[in-house]
This record gives sequence, C-alpha cells and structure tokens, in this order.
Amino acid sequence: MSAMSSNDSLARLAAIIESRKPANGGDPEKSYVARLLHKGPDAFLKKIGEEATEVVMAAKDADGPKIVNEVADLWFHSMIALAHYGLSPADVIAELERREGTSGIEEKALRKAIDREGGAA
Amino acid sequence: MSAMSSNDSLARLAAIIESRKPANGGDPEKSYVARLLHKGPDAFLKKIGEEATEVVMAAKDADGPKIVNEVADLWFHSMIALAHYGLSPADVIAELERREGTSGIEEKALRKAIDREGGAA
Amino acid sequence: MSAMSSNDSLARLAAIIESRKPANGGDPEKSYVARLLHKGPDAFLKKIGEEATEVVMAAKDADGPKIVNEVADLWFHSMIALAHYGLSPADVIAELERREGTSGIEEKALRKAIDREGGAA
Amino acid sequence: MSAMSSNDSLARLAAIIESRKPANGGDPEKSYVARLLHKGPDAFLKKIGEEATEVVMAAKDADGPKIVNEVADLWFHSMIALAHYGLSPADVIAELERREGTSGIEEKALRKAIDREGGAA
Repeated sequence: MSAMSSNDSLARLAAIIESRKPANGGDPEKSYVARLLHKGPDAFLKKIGEEATEVVMAAKDADGPKIVNEVADLWFHSMIALAHYGLSPADVIAELERREGTSGIEEKALRKAIDREGGAA
Repeated sequence: MSAMSSNDSLARLAAIIESRKPANGGDPEKSYVARLLHKGPDAFLKKIGEEATEVVMAAKDADGPKIVNEVADLWFHSMIALAHYGLSPADVIAELERREGTSGIEEKALRKAIDREGGAA
Repeated sequence: MSAMSSNDSLARLAAIIESRKPANGGDPEKSYVARLLHKGPDAFLKKIGEEATEVVMAAKDADGPKIVNEVADLWFHSMIALAHYGLSPADVIAELERREGTSGIEEKALRKAIDREGGAA
Repeated sequence: MSAMSSNDSLARLAAIIESRKPANGGDPEKSYVARLLHKGPDAFLKKIGEEATEVVMAAKDADGPKIVNEVADLWFHSMIALAHYGLSPADVIAELERREGTSGIEEKALRKAIDREGGAA
C-alpha cells in the first residue's frame, strides 16, 4: 500500500461516515452507519466494547486474519463515534504524532508502570 | 495535516513499536512499549479492554478532547497487539479499504442489523 | 457453603461497601473501596471494563482458579457501582429471580438469537 | 427478599444453566443458554464484554433500573461462563468471603492504588 492510499483510505472512510449522518441525509433504512448514527451513542459505543472483546479473543487464539478483522471493526466503530462528536481519525493521528513528538512521553508512561508494579506487593 | 504525514505517522509509530520488541533489543526498563511486549499478550490486551471502556465513558460525557485522547490510547494499544502478532496498521487499513471496495458491504451489515431488530420483539 | 452463608456473604459485603461511602465516613486513605467511591464513577466503571476483559482472558486460558478470581473482581466492582447508585446485589438477584419466574423469558431471548443468526447471511 | 431466597435464587439459576449444557441434553433450538453453551466460549465471553459496556453506559446515565438490568445480564452471562468451566457462583462467593476474611485485603489493594497514583505524575 502506498503512503498516499493509506491516508486516503482513512480520510475517505471518514468522509463516507460523515455523509451517513442524519443531518447529511444518511438513510437508516439503507446504510448500517446511518442506522447506528440515527440510533445514537449507545448503539455504536456498545459496539466498541463488543469489538474490543473480540480483538482480545482473536488475540488469545493468535488468529492473525481474525485479529486484523476485529481491529478493523474496532477502529471502524471508533470512527463512527468520532464522527458523531464532530471528530475525525486525523485528530487521533495528530494526537499520536504529538505524543511521539513529545520527548519523554514513553518514559512517563514507563515510570507510571514501574510504580504500579512496585506497589503491587 | 497533509495526506503524507498521517500515513507516515501510523507507519512511523508502527516502526517504533517494532523496535521495542524484545527480539529487537527493546528494553523493558527503558520503554513502556517494550515493557508491555515483554510481559506478554495479557498485559496489552487488558489495556485494550480498559481503553475501550474509557472511550465509552469519554463519549458519554461528550468530552471531545478526552474522546480523541482515549481513542488514541485504544488505537495505540491495538498497534502493540498487532506488532506482537506480526501484523501492522497497514493490514487493518487494507482490510478497511477492502470492505469499502466490496460493494454491498454496508448493505449486508444493514440487513443483519434490521433482522436483529426485527427479532427483538 | 450453606444457603445462609452465601446470602449473608453478599449482603455483608454490600454492607461493608456501604460503610465505605464518603457520606458514611469512608476514608480514602484507609480503604480501597472508599477511595474508588471518593474518586467517583469513572474510577470504578473503568475497573468493570478491565475486570470483564480479565474474565475473558482467564476463560480463554481455561484457567479455573483465575476465572473464579476475575469473576469475583468483576462482581465486587459491580457491587461498588451498585452502592454508588443506591442499589444492592439484592436488587440484581431479585431481577434474576423475576426473569426466572417470567415463563418464556428464555424463549424470547432465544427467538432474538435465532433471528440474529438467520439475518447473518 | 429473605436470606434464603437470595442464595436459593443464584443456586437455582446455576442449576438451570447446568441443565442446559449439551451433555445434559440442553437443546440449542429451545433454550438461549443451551444455544450459547453449544456455540462455545466466544459466544458467551463476547456477551460479557458487551454487558460490561452496557453497565458502564447505564451507570453514566445514572439510570437505576437499567443499571440493575445490565448488572443482572452481566452476572447471568458470567454464570454461563462459570458453568462451562465446571465452576459455580458458590465458588465466586466463597472467594469473596475468603477475601473478606483475609484481614488487610483492602489495605493491600489500597497500597497498590496509592502507589499507582503516586506514580501518575
């Protein structure tokens, strides 16, 4: 996959989700995404909990294709949630970039983890 | 954010995670990611369940910046799991692209959702 | 375990949790439960998501003692949530009894499940 | 609810679940529980992740009756998992009793929590 297509893909998917919003004419009878957005937060948030559990189960089975499939489901439903709140995958990627740019970010998380374990007598 | 930077960012982050694997010399005393990878699947899978719950709570609070933060955490820990199983975010994005390319994919998910609700007397 | 002791146990545990509420003098510096209740819903709700994931992982490992341990953690943190909202395990048990008493409750859940699968072309 | 009925209820529910096991003649076409047990661990473990998320959402809404309902669902599906692995709610309650009996158990959890927060700079 080229560098271009990957980003195009997330942005394109976000655009499709955006077009499915009720305010943008998304039809709950014709689109799964429109249906979830129409039903409101609990409908897609529940899916996030469900898909996270499926990622965990696929990982425990060390089933590669299934892991990819379930992570795709998890990210996809995360993107529906982002869209509902006026956010986008670009915001998430910017946050990940920001952290990467913040020197010491891993060190801070590490310090917390070590303290946590140190405390776990 | 440019089209380039977004993909660069995910690929760069995946490369950093890759370099933290025990086999690649990742040091559990110096890196949070190396620590999680060293501890094994349960350590990072537990975080996926935890971060998914935090996404749900931030969403229920409609707290935009927190939602972005928690989705970033969720995706980040998903990427650690992907790395452990020899997978990458590019695999997930390819899967999302594949679905988008499959005409009727949303219609199938929709049919299932409608059947589900029809059954919910 | 006698019929008595089991119920005594849940009710006794609920009473202990109740006594840890800030309003009842629970001290966040001395009690783990008081600490969670003092920090507010997100603190104990996050634990519910976390412990549910740990139940799933222990189950995938078919590790009996760990399953018991994690389900105990899950139920324990559920009880903290119940207490915070003025509810008790007795309410949950009453609901489970009510369902059992409702003839056809399993049949309804079953019909939904079959419809769901029927729809999954 | 009498002291008796609460325990009777959990034990009775566990007995019903037990009778739904494939080995005990549970019929997946007639019983929801038999269906889940027949489909295997992923089917009921997925429900645990899903119901935990629903508990969290109901709690964020501070919706008492819904919280009771979702915790009942969560405990019910936990009991199906317990049954599958040859365990029972009595084992969970015994574990909770054991902890209560272990003086200092809360103090240990507390120490860990304080260390954790201390580390969270």
